[in-house]
Amino acid sequence: MPIVTIRQLEGRTVEQKRQVAKEITNTIVKVYKIDADRVTVNFFDMPNYNIAKAGKLFLDLGL
Amino acid sequence: MPIVTIRQLEGRTVEQKRQVAKEITNTIVKVYKIDADRVTVNFFDMPNYNIAKAGKLFLDLGL
Amino acid sequence: MPIVTIRQLEGRTVEQKRQVAKEITNTIVKVYKIDADRVTVNFFDMPNYNIAKAGKLFLDLGL
Amino acid sequence: MPIVTIRQLEGRTVEQKRQVAKEITNTIVKVYKIDADRVTVNFFDMPNYNIAKAGKLFLDLGL
Amino acid sequence: MPIVTIRQLEGRTVEQKRQVAKEITNTIVKVYKIDADRVTVNFFDMPNYNIAKAGKLFLDLGL
Amino acid sequence: MPIVTIRQLEGRTVEQKRQVAKEITNTIVKVYKIDADRVTVNFFDMPNYNIAKAGKLFLDLGL
Repeated sequence: MPIVTIRQLEGRTVEQKRQVAKEITNTIVKVYKIDADRVTVNFFDMPNYNIAKAGKLFLDLGL
Repeated sequence: MPIVTIRQLEGRTVEQKRQVAKEITNTIVKVYKIDADRVTVNFFDMPNYNIAKAGKLFLDLGL
Repeated sequence: MPIVTIRQLEGRTVEQKRQVAKEITNTIVKVYKIDADRVTVNFFDMPNYNIAKAGKLFLDLGL
Repeated sequence: MPIVTIRQLEGRTVEQKRQVAKEITNTIVKVYKIDADRVTVNFFDMPNYNIAKAGKLFLDLGL
Repeated sequence: MPIVTIRQLEGRTVEQKRQVAKEITNTIVKVYKIDADRVTVNFFDMPNYNIAKAGKLFLDLGL
Repeated sequence: MPIVTIRQLEGRTVEQKRQVAKEITNTIVKVYKIDADRVTVNFFDMPNYNIAKAGKLFLDLGL
């Protein structure tokens, strides 16, 4: 703990996740003054037919 | 926000998700009196070897 | 399963949750053609200092 | 309810999940004195590029 | 990782959680053959007006 | 979407959450090249009797 979970539309690259995980961890370490070892980051990549905004699937919104 | 997450056995069609996302959003808009734009719906489709009820995998229950 | 989870700003009444739980369950029963007994709904009420949009806490946005 | 969710690095076998689901359910039934029918277990199998510890992806840690 | 999350009706004692956390961790260590240090357990205690089954709040079911 | 969720031991101040929410959002906007409006951050503050590591409650570990 802390455990950071990021739900996002699929399609982000491994390099993007690598950078996001590193920077988010650095932020938490700096602001909470804790060891980096305690921070876990998880990504969930979601297809566009599994997300809806305002009642419409991302698939139908062309996202 | 609100964020609605639905964990379910995989196999629902896109058309079913489309309808569920629409109707759930309509319900929340009506009851909470908020704009539809604020409502996000996420689906997680889970294989039958990743769900257990009463200690038995859905896979073993023939579901 | 399905398990429906709703994260929302705190302040909804029990009567609103009662209605939302009933209508969402009805939608899922109708669209997925399953028994209502299989549907669980959970609410998480979140204070305005625990939600941020566009990098700003709801607390600071006056929400 | 209770709903038990296990997020884990992918690669566990169905037989391992079968045993974990059974034993966790038994523990909850015994300690909480409730019927097994009320206990749901869900697994999320996560690829090593979607987990980071101390700011580094499991992929980069050779896990 | 693994991260085990247990959502449950509020009212379990600390002693019950202590025992459940210990036994679930032991199960995972034994079946997955990993170090106990890697296992995190989280509990979410939910009031009876925030859970519904079959479209009815636990509050209204007398639970 | 993306939705960032941070589960953490309770006790962080609003000012710490304000800063974490801002910096995490900035990171995501920069790396994913998306509008800040699309990013939601949620915090869950957990008491020390609801977290266990290596089978021991944080409460019992003096955390």
